[in-house]
Amino acid sequence: MLGARGLLRGLRACSSAPRPRRALPARLSVLAALGAAGGERIKVQGWIRSVRSQKEVLFLHVNDGSSLESLQVVADSSLDNGELTFGSSVEVQGQLVQSPSRMQNVELKAEKIEVVGNCDAKESGFVHIHTPIITSNDCEGAGEIFQIEPSSKINGSDENFFNVPAFLTVSGQLHLEVMSGAFTQVFTFGPTFRAENSQSRRHLAEFYMVEAEISFVENLQDIMQVMEGLFKTATMTVLSNCPEDVELCHKFIAPGQKDRLDHMLKNNFLIISYTEAIEILKKASQNFTFTPEWGADLHTEHEKYLVKHCGNVPVFVINYPLTLKPFYMRDNEDGPQHTVAAVDLLVPGVGELFGGSLREERYHFLEQQLARLGLTEVYQWYLDLRQFGSVPHGGFGMGFERYLQCILGVDNIKDVIPFPRFPHSCLL
Amino acid sequence: MLGARGLLRGLRACSSAPRPRRALPARLSVLAALGAAGGERIKVQGWIRSVRSQKEVLFLHVNDGSSLESLQVVADSSLDNGELTFGSSVEVQGQLVQSPSRMQNVELKAEKIEVVGNCDAKESGFVHIHTPIITSNDCEGAGEIFQIEPSSKINGSDENFFNVPAFLTVSGQLHLEVMSGAFTQVFTFGPTFRAENSQSRRHLAEFYMVEAEISFVENLQDIMQVMEGLFKTATMTVLSNCPEDVELCHKFIAPGQKDRLDHMLKNNFLIISYTEAIEILKKASQNFTFTPEWGADLHTEHEKYLVKHCGNVPVFVINYPLTLKPFYMRDNEDGPQHTVAAVDLLVPGVGELFGGSLREERYHFLEQQLARLGLTEVYQWYLDLRQFGSVPHGGFGMGFERYLQCILGVDNIKDVIPFPRFPHSCLL
Repeated sequence: MLGARGLLRGLRACSSAPRPRRALPARLSVLAALGAAGGERIKVQGWIRSVRSQKEVLFLHVNDGSSLESLQVVADSSLDNGELTFGSSVEVQGQLVQSPSRMQNVELKAEKIEVVGNCDAKESGFVHIHTPIITSNDCEGAGEIFQIEPSSKINGSDENFFNVPAFLTVSGQLHLEVMSGAFTQVFTFGPTFRAENSQSRRHLAEFYMVEAEISFVENLQDIMQVMEGLFKTATMTVLSNCPEDVELCHKFIAPGQKDRLDHMLKNNFLIISYTEAIEILKKASQNFTFTPEWGADLHTEHEKYLVKHCGNVPVFVINYPLTLKPFYMRDNEDGPQHTVAAVDLLVPGVGELFGGSLREERYHFLEQQLARLGLTEVYQWYLDLRQFGSVPHGGFGMGFERYLQCILGVDNIKDVIPFPRFPHSCLL
Repeated sequence: MLGARGLLRGLRACSSAPRPRRALPARLSVLAALGAAGGERIKVQGWIRSVRSQKEVLFLHVNDGSSLESLQVVADSSLDNGELTFGSSVEVQGQLVQSPSRMQNVELKAEKIEVVGNCDAKESGFVHIHTPIITSNDCEGAGEIFQIEPSSKINGSDENFFNVPAFLTVSGQLHLEVMSGAFTQVFTFGPTFRAENSQSRRHLAEFYMVEAEISFVENLQDIMQVMEGLFKTATMTVLSNCPEDVELCHKFIAPGQKDRLDHMLKNNFLIISYTEAIEILKKASQNFTFTPEWGADLHTEHEKYLVKHCGNVPVFVINYPLTLKPFYMRDNEDGPQHTVAAVDLLVPGVGELFGGSLREERYHFLEQQLARLGLTEVYQWYLDLRQFGSVPHGGFGMGFERYLQCILGVDNIKDVIPFPRFPHSCLL
C-alpha cells in the first residue's frame, strides 16, 4: 500500500514536472529488463497479459515471449485510454525502478504507453449456445454423415424414432444463425461428426469445433479480424496459463515450434484471393499430385505450399468459386468467374484451420440457390429467417484439434484428443 | 486509496485497543444494513459473493438473499484464516460506517468474522475432460440407446464404420474414471443421449450432464459434499451474474420460486437411506400409483413425496439395493438386504437431479459382478483399471436441464433447451 503511494507520487512528479531533454531510451526485451539493475530509461514492446486497474494507479503485466515471467508496468491511471486490455500489444516507455513488492525485483514506471494493436476481446460479448448434436438437417448437403436410430430398432421397424431421419451434426452453424437473429453475437463449442473414410493425420470422425456467428457484419474483413483475434488471444492465454505443458510439447515433440508460433503471433495474417492463390500455385516450381486449376478445390499440398510461400504466416484465402461452396454463402455477383464471400484460414503445419463466410441474407438469392439444389422444402425454415428481420451476417468455424496441432506442433490429430474416433477404431 | 488507509487505521484501533463492554449487536439482514444510517454495531449472516484481498485489508461482499445488492465488509487481513472463500457462509460482526467509496452508502467494518459453512471451491481443482460422444460401450448396460452408422450404409453393407457397433454415449463416467486415474479430480460437461420413448416433462433424447469423478474418496459423505457445493455455488453464481433473467422466470413462470430456492440454499441438504425412504413412503397417507416396496425403484411420485416430507429441502437418498443399480457401484457388503454405496439427490419440483456412487475399486468384487452379468469380455479394459494402481474413487452426474428447471421453476424440460429432441420431434 505504502509502496504504491510512493510510486504514485513518483509518477505524478514524472508526468507533470518539466523535464530536461533526455537520450532516447534503449529498447529492451522483457527478459533483459527483468535482469537489469534498475534506474535505466527503457522501452519495451509486448502483449498485455493482465490488467489491474485501481483508482489512481494501473498495473500491467507485459510479456514479449522472451521470458515466461512478465514485466510489471506501473502507470498513472490517466495513461489508460480504454485500449489497455488483455491481449493488446503495447510499446511502453519509462524508467526501470526497484520494485517495492517481493513479487519482482524491478518494475517499469511508465511515462508513455502506446497501443500497437488493440484487442477488444470481442468474444466476451458472445453468447454461448449449445447447438444440438442430433439434427434433421444434413447442413452442408455434402460429405458423409452419421445417421442414428435406437439400437433396438436398427435392424427392425421402418418407423423413425423422431418420425424423420436423424443425423449427427456436421456443424452448429445453421442453429447459430437462428440464435444470432436474437443475440447478435453467438458461439458454440462442441463435438461435430463426419463419416468420411479417411485415415489422414488431420481428420477424425468425432472432433470439436468453435463456431461463431455475428449479425450486422457486412464484409469479410470484420469476420477475419475476429478469427485472427481468436487465434492470437486463445494462444496467448494458453501460453500464459500453462507454459509448462506447452514447453513439454515443444521440447520433446516439436523442437523449433516455439519460434514458429512466435512468428505467427507477432505478424499480421496475410490475405490473398482464391484466384491469386491459384496463380501462385500455377507458377510454383513444385510438382503437385493435383494440378492447381481455377474452379477446383485446394488440396493439403496446395495449402501447405501457400503458407510456405507466404513466409509461414497464417494466410486467409478469400472469394472462392460459387460452385465449390455450400448454398448459404453470399454471392459476390462478380464475373465472369462467379465467386462467393468465403474465407479459409491456412496455417503452418496443418493447412486449413478455419472456414467461414458471409451468409446469403437476401431472400431471393438464397431462394434461387436452394431451388437450384432441390433443397427448398427441407430448408424452408432457414429461408424464413431471411423473410423476418433478415440482417447481413457471417461467421466461421475453427477445428479445435487442428488448432491444438498447430500451436503444439503435433503431427497426428489422433494425438491431441483423449479418445480418438476414426474409421475402424472406436476404443472404449 | 486514502479512504482505505483511513479505514485501516480505524480497524487497527478497533482490534488492538482495550474496549469497554458493549451491548450485543443487533442482527440485521443485508437489506436492512444497506438502508441504515451508519454508526450502529450489527451482526450480518450470509454468503460471500466476492473476496478481494489486499496486503493489509480484505474486502468481502456478503449477500443473504434479502437484496440483490451485497454488503461490503472491510476487514483487517489478520481476520482471514483462509476459509473466507467465494460461496462460504459467514457471520460478520462489526460497525456500520459511511463508505468512503461512491459504490455504496455504508460498509461494515468487521471486528469478527466466523465461517459458518466453508466452501473450498473444489471444482477449481477439477480438470475438464471432453469424453467422447461416440462409444463402443453401452455404459450402464441398461435403457434404450442410439446406434450410429454412416447414412450411406444404414440400409446396406453389414460392415461397421468402426468395425464394432457404435453408440451415442449415455454417460461419460467410464471415460472419466480412466482420466481420474491420472488427474485425480476430473469433470465433463456435454451432451448425453437416451432413446427412451418417454413424453414426460423431465426427459429428453438429448440432454446435458455435468459429471465429476474423484480419486482417493472413501465415503459417500465426501461425494455428497461436492454435490451440495456444486448446486449451491452454481446457483449463487447464476443469481449473482444474471439476476434479471432469473427474476423474469420467477416473476412470470414460477411466482414464489425465489423463496423456495432461498429455502434450498439456506438449509443443509438432508440424508436418508433408501431403506428409510421406503419406510416413509409406506407410512404415507398418500395413495401411490406404484406401491412402495423394498427392492423396487423409486418413481417420480415417490421422489416428490419424499422431498415434501423432508420440508422441501433437497434430500440425498443413499445405499440402494444392489440389484437396482449398475455393476460398477461399490458393494456395501451388508445384509440381509444387500446394498451398494449409491446416492441420488432429490430436489423440489423435479425429483432426481443427481445420481452418484462410490465405484467398485476392488478387482475381485468387480470381476464377480461382470461375470454374473456376462460382461467380462466387453469390460475387460475397465476391469484392468482395478489391476494397475486402483484407488477408492467415486463420482456423480447432474442433469443440466433438470437443474435449470429446478432453479428457474420451469415445469417442462423442453422449455429450458433451445432445440429440444424427444420422440417424434427433431425440429431443425
